[in-house]
Amino acid sequence: MLKVGIVGGTGYTGAELLRLLSTHAEAEVAMITSRAEDGVAVDELFPSLRGAVDLRFTTPDVKALASCDVVFFATPHNVAMNMVPELLAAGTRIIDLSADFRISDAALWSKWYNEEHVCPDVLATAVYGLPESNAEQIRDAKLIACPGCYPTAVELGLIPLLEQKLVDPKRLIASAASGVSGAGRQAKIDNLYAELSESFKAYGVAGHRHLPEIEQELAIAAGGPVGLTFTPHLLPQVRGIHATLFTELLDPAVPLDELQFMFEKRYADSPFVDVMPLGSLPQTRTVRGANTCRLAVYRPQNRDTVVVLSVIDNLVKGASGQAIQNMNIMFGLPETMGLQGLALLP
Amino acid sequence: MLKVGIVGGTGYTGAELLRLLSTHAEAEVAMITSRAEDGVAVDELFPSLRGAVDLRFTTPDVKALASCDVVFFATPHNVAMNMVPELLAAGTRIIDLSADFRISDAALWSKWYNEEHVCPDVLATAVYGLPESNAEQIRDAKLIACPGCYPTAVELGLIPLLEQKLVDPKRLIASAASGVSGAGRQAKIDNLYAELSESFKAYGVAGHRHLPEIEQELAIAAGGPVGLTFTPHLLPQVRGIHATLFTELLDPAVPLDELQFMFEKRYADSPFVDVMPLGSLPQTRTVRGANTCRLAVYRPQNRDTVVVLSVIDNLVKGASGQAIQNMNIMFGLPETMGLQGLALLP
Amino acid sequence: MLKVGIVGGTGYTGAELLRLLSTHAEAEVAMITSRAEDGVAVDELFPSLRGAVDLRFTTPDVKALASCDVVFFATPHNVAMNMVPELLAAGTRIIDLSADFRISDAALWSKWYNEEHVCPDVLATAVYGLPESNAEQIRDAKLIACPGCYPTAVELGLIPLLEQKLVDPKRLIASAASGVSGAGRQAKIDNLYAELSESFKAYGVAGHRHLPEIEQELAIAAGGPVGLTFTPHLLPQVRGIHATLFTELLDPAVPLDELQFMFEKRYADSPFVDVMPLGSLPQTRTVRGANTCRLAVYRPQNRDTVVVLSVIDNLVKGASGQAIQNMNIMFGLPETMGLQGLALLP
Amino acid sequence: MLKVGIVGGTGYTGAELLRLLSTHAEAEVAMITSRAEDGVAVDELFPSLRGAVDLRFTTPDVKALASCDVVFFATPHNVAMNMVPELLAAGTRIIDLSADFRISDAALWSKWYNEEHVCPDVLATAVYGLPESNAEQIRDAKLIACPGCYPTAVELGLIPLLEQKLVDPKRLIASAASGVSGAGRQAKIDNLYAELSESFKAYGVAGHRHLPEIEQELAIAAGGPVGLTFTPHLLPQVRGIHATLFTELLDPAVPLDELQFMFEKRYADSPFVDVMPLGSLPQTRTVRGANTCRLAVYRPQNRDTVVVLSVIDNLVKGASGQAIQNMNIMFGLPETMGLQGLALLP
Repeated sequence: MLKVGIVGGTGYTGAELLRLLSTHAEAEVAMITSRAEDGVAVDELFPSLRGAVDLRFTTPDVKALASCDVVFFATPHNVAMNMVPELLAAGTRIIDLSADFRISDAALWSKWYNEEHVCPDVLATAVYGLPESNAEQIRDAKLIACPGCYPTAVELGLIPLLEQKLVDPKRLIASAASGVSGAGRQAKIDNLYAELSESFKAYGVAGHRHLPEIEQELAIAAGGPVGLTFTPHLLPQVRGIHATLFTELLDPAVPLDELQFMFEKRYADSPFVDVMPLGSLPQTRTVRGANTCRLAVYRPQNRDTVVVLSVIDNLVKGASGQAIQNMNIMFGLPETMGLQGLALLP
Repeated sequence: MLKVGIVGGTGYTGAELLRLLSTHAEAEVAMITSRAEDGVAVDELFPSLRGAVDLRFTTPDVKALASCDVVFFATPHNVAMNMVPELLAAGTRIIDLSADFRISDAALWSKWYNEEHVCPDVLATAVYGLPESNAEQIRDAKLIACPGCYPTAVELGLIPLLEQKLVDPKRLIASAASGVSGAGRQAKIDNLYAELSESFKAYGVAGHRHLPEIEQELAIAAGGPVGLTFTPHLLPQVRGIHATLFTELLDPAVPLDELQFMFEKRYADSPFVDVMPLGSLPQTRTVRGANTCRLAVYRPQNRDTVVVLSVIDNLVKGASGQAIQNMNIMFGLPETMGLQGLALLP
Repeated sequence: MLKVGIVGGTGYTGAELLRLLSTHAEAEVAMITSRAEDGVAVDELFPSLRGAVDLRFTTPDVKALASCDVVFFATPHNVAMNMVPELLAAGTRIIDLSADFRISDAALWSKWYNEEHVCPDVLATAVYGLPESNAEQIRDAKLIACPGCYPTAVELGLIPLLEQKLVDPKRLIASAASGVSGAGRQAKIDNLYAELSESFKAYGVAGHRHLPEIEQELAIAAGGPVGLTFTPHLLPQVRGIHATLFTELLDPAVPLDELQFMFEKRYADSPFVDVMPLGSLPQTRTVRGANTCRLAVYRPQNRDTVVVLSVIDNLVKGASGQAIQNMNIMFGLPETMGLQGLALLP
Repeated sequence: MLKVGIVGGTGYTGAELLRLLSTHAEAEVAMITSRAEDGVAVDELFPSLRGAVDLRFTTPDVKALASCDVVFFATPHNVAMNMVPELLAAGTRIIDLSADFRISDAALWSKWYNEEHVCPDVLATAVYGLPESNAEQIRDAKLIACPGCYPTAVELGLIPLLEQKLVDPKRLIASAASGVSGAGRQAKIDNLYAELSESFKAYGVAGHRHLPEIEQELAIAAGGPVGLTFTPHLLPQVRGIHATLFTELLDPAVPLDELQFMFEKRYADSPFVDVMPLGSLPQTRTVRGANTCRLAVYRPQNRDTVVVLSVIDNLVKGASGQAIQNMNIMFGLPETMGLQGLALLP
């Protein structure tokens, strides 16, 4: 039985880790931290866990956390990087759901997050936790940087086309939309029900922190620099990310069914990526609560633009589910353990 | 491994049976019927089941269904009663999620459903499938009439007070609200998104078919006739029932904490009923996707009115989850098998 | 042209006053205050007003406000009572949308609002601004206490029955539900989209501040003390209040159509109360954005319980619209001026 | 006073025409037709109109309609083209909200609508009713083809860039999202609340009927052929269209503030187009119920892609409001008459 610690348990990804791990056969949450809620019963904050989770929040303590086999950070950025070096030194393996270790270039990280990275040497050892690309490195990793929610949806949709050099890497467009839970559980007027219901807007249009992360991973797939326009939007719903990806075919002679076949082959061994049949329209609700990414490929009007549709649950495949998928791989467990629950539909 | 058949698989309760049974260790769905979708793959209609359910809808055939250990009817009323007698004769056990066998008085049934009951003799053998009241009879039942969604929420909230003769049985008021999935998956203008979003209304105020069912069960608990005013409302949300129950104390001397204690004792052995601490406010989302009923008891201003709040997921504890709970009891399995998934929150 | 001032313009009722007054033929907003947003353009906070409202927030200043013919307070409680005496002394008429002057018994007010009332003498001169009951007093009032949102919906539904002494005044039950905008535009985790969407709950069950206000007004209608159990609920929608009112007939011989006729007669001269035909089901969306209250009367199963359904838009008839209706009456304008916009449906 | 007829009054655009015209000073609805609801009171179907609209639906009759000054068609395609020739012959002016006269090439129309156009000669006389481009022709038109909802949002966002030849006309991408009311008031399972709430999907990806309409109008603006990839999505909300438009600058030297200035100049005389300040994020709720289009222009990362954001209310500026705007121009009334209501926010 793996002994699990969670740092930052009062947000939605923390709660989702608890929900998913509550049915995991080989892992048990031993401690969960929150400075603000120290001493409070977890199920008081999240009554959905009543009867299943019998823990109280504690103030984070590196020594106590070091007794765990693995520690998840479900914190805002700039928390993990201050605790991870000491935990790694103690032999604890780390799965960080925040942004602290996602961008391998420390200077680029600083530019987008407006502060110095406190441990660039540790950053250099982090493995980007997208199992569909990096399963081998994940197996032996001590420190996993879990991909962001948008990056997961966008990368899974574009990587196959870039790896095969089928589309122009300089003309990538991602118009993506996220449910509100992606904004976290913080008291902000902008995220009130009365501000968001029955409305839709773009945000971060001039520049969103997920842009450099996505470009980094797409460049690896493309084997060279890429240019991406990334426009996120906020949906009047709680969960779900939908990415609509526009690319330009380099060779217009490639037929759609060949693209479809290529996608199916690329993900044939990926239990959590579902390449849907031609003509499918992925809905975010078909992955709500599940660790699945569903993809569909189009070539509208048989013109040169290839459109890929990609949906995930931002809190599961986009965060806590993917974190557990990484844990399973790191500890030699079946990749799907604890992650086989189906989406809640309707 | 129990061999399960489902009649009427294109509605929401059918889809929910599939979702829940997909992780059940001792039951397997062998067939699922739909006249309209005969031959269609189930996961084409419900893409959330892709990769987990590999069945096609078939036209219902009693002989084929008779090969099952248990058959669930997830149909509108007036379907089950035409097939059940033959299936029972073949030795198949039946769990009917429809209204056909819920009201034991055939004449009363006829009055509310506007047709003759086709098998009043079989009706007389049906067991009302509320495990929190009828576990013993369920164990040996051949035919279970699963409670309606509103009745489940209302009965679990009122039964303790009536059994203990603490409140006036003639002055019961249930103001309840349901998510839209309770109206089923049928093409009706009234149930369109654009008709229901951002709006709330009562319906069935003059008389709703769940009234006689609830009064029947409450009368059993009270040991005599009851008078209930039942007002259902339609919520702008998919899942969830919230019942607000108003009763009048017969003896004003009974303090609130005694009522609380009495509720806790009544449900001490009921794994799916959560009597929340004093002062709690049950939210429907804390049971979304789960087979749980959460209750809270109040005595506002210390006056004579006792208010009970009761929430369930109408598709789970109010339908498919409760049906599986019944199956577990009927076949000697642990009552909670396949039903331990936690609610999706947020 | 009336010169209007608004104190507390950054909340939803402030924004709604601006929307409604922008088309009022005889009133013009001259100033709108907010300490926090001093100097900010109003349409920066509320882009829906771009092109129609060309004002900046200012810090509240009693001297400047005293130059207005009428000042609306769209503030939390405990603001108006500190400024009103001085404004009244200057001859400015006041319409207070907050709770400061709604409860005429200063001691009762203190008990529910946990502080001393600073001007009980002024409180004694306030007129409760429910035009359907108090039009005469409103005409000459210097200070209007606008009814709360729940109180408006509940009182309009119960007053006719109580005035006619048709129902037991000690057994009144109001199960009401409100859209989230009723909770105001404040940064609270409880009011986040991700906390409220697809969920429903009761709140304030043990005691809500609108209870004493409603009981005060119902007692006036009944000509004696009343007993009300009031249970509010929070809806996953922005606007709208729905009250479901349960009462017990004193004389069971009164037929439903007589009750219906009595309601129609009571409100025959009330342009904003719509007594719907027998069998109607008022939806909150039919009054969204409009100053209308729609009512329907039922007597389920012809038993002794009379059920009244009442819907309003909490921000319009429950707040800003009613405030303008009061202004119209106070200044001798047609009661419906500026309030004839129809509800937005769908 | 203009005498107005409406054909097809039971849909959402019909109801919206009634709402908007109820406050129009120079127009009055004299008749409204519906075969299915012949004889039914309009306010029975749309209770929001109670007290303001005192009409009954009638079966459409060309002779009666010919007595009107102007007739609006709020019908599905393939209705108007069968009645319009006779009405025009009688001297009645027509504003068609359907697709029958939007595409000037009859063969292209046939290809996308799968039937022959019944009056290509009349089609040749239709004026495309986008007042921001065609005000002159609208003034004298006998027959207006009102733009589709998506086309309105997309065209207003792209026309300025194309007119000025600033972007590559062959590389246009429109990722747009619509509220559900755009799908009409028809009984379809796909449009049920329980199918759409808390979910988001693309649709019509392989080809949507608005594509040829948009390309036709953009080609006029560009003065030559254009290539557009148009991907619509369905939002879990009732009203609102948001278009996110991606274009490629031909000359990277053009700075963003020059683009902004160009947009402001282009729409300086357009009362219903709001070019928002640099950095703005248009929300659909800021135009809910209003005839406004709000635009914002971006150049992310100062790269070569220009992103334009465009929002409208699909039922107002995207349908019924724009129809009335056309009527005002046709009959020499102020362009904004009856259309000055502000958006409902929140």
